[in-house]
Amino acid sequence: MNPRRKFITLFVGLGLGVFLPKKLTAAKPAKSMIVHQVYFWLKKPKKDLKDVMKGCKAIGKLKSARSYQVGVPAATAKRDVIDDSYHIALTVTFKSIEDHDLYQEDPVHLKFIADHKDKWEKVQVYDFEVD
Amino acid sequence: MNPRRKFITLFVGLGLGVFLPKKLTAAKPAKSMIVHQVYFWLKKPKKDLKDVMKGCKAIGKLKSARSYQVGVPAATAKRDVIDDSYHIALTVTFKSIEDHDLYQEDPVHLKFIADHKDKWEKVQVYDFEVD
Repeated sequence: MNPRRKFITLFVGLGLGVFLPKKLTAAKPAKSMIVHQVYFWLKKPKKDLKDVMKGCKAIGKLKSARSYQVGVPAATAKRDVIDDSYHIALTVTFKSIEDHDLYQEDPVHLKFIADHKDKWEKVQVYDFEVD
Repeated sequence: MNPRRKFITLFVGLGLGVFLPKKLTAAKPAKSMIVHQVYFWLKKPKKDLKDVMKGCKAIGKLKSARSYQVGVPAATAKRDVIDDSYHIALTVTFKSIEDHDLYQEDPVHLKFIADHKDKWEKVQVYDFEVD
């Protein structure tokens, strides 16, 4: 194949890639995902909210984590089933329980706990596995 | 431009698209996201788990929702801060509180509640807003 034809063939191939269904072109996703959902109730939310949220964002970026998000209670209509008494919601996802365990033991995560644990009144965790 | 050249140009353009950073090619994301996090405790989990999970997956696919996931407690190490007594975790995300409200009022969502509410003992909801 001459170089020009080779060049065209390469781009035709890449171009066709755009039309392939995502399942064929994307990296193979993990079969399941671990979601580590944490709610923090702070002793002094006005004083400490920003600082603890900043810490949450730092630990969410750890290599062992797949993705993370940090939130605060949303202004949805109040209902009996809703608990909006917490101050921070931290979601960290992992590819496996092994990665979750690496995250738990990471010095950066341990430092986060040491630095901020006196600021929270309560922590509630829900770990779940998603298909 | 002759048709052959047009064809090549089209595919070269598509090919180059593959190399563009995602931020330039992806649709602009919403500035914030509403996460509607629900935990279900079932009266008869062995009997009803699959059925309620199926219902969760159906409401997660409603047009008003941005994304959804349905999970069950993960086998992470037991700790005092972890609540693993629930049976199903349903996460539905929305672009706005307006979309969340549309979801709540959707006949499919109301039918889900009517069909399954006798199967759960407790429902706990945390709605939060993520940057």
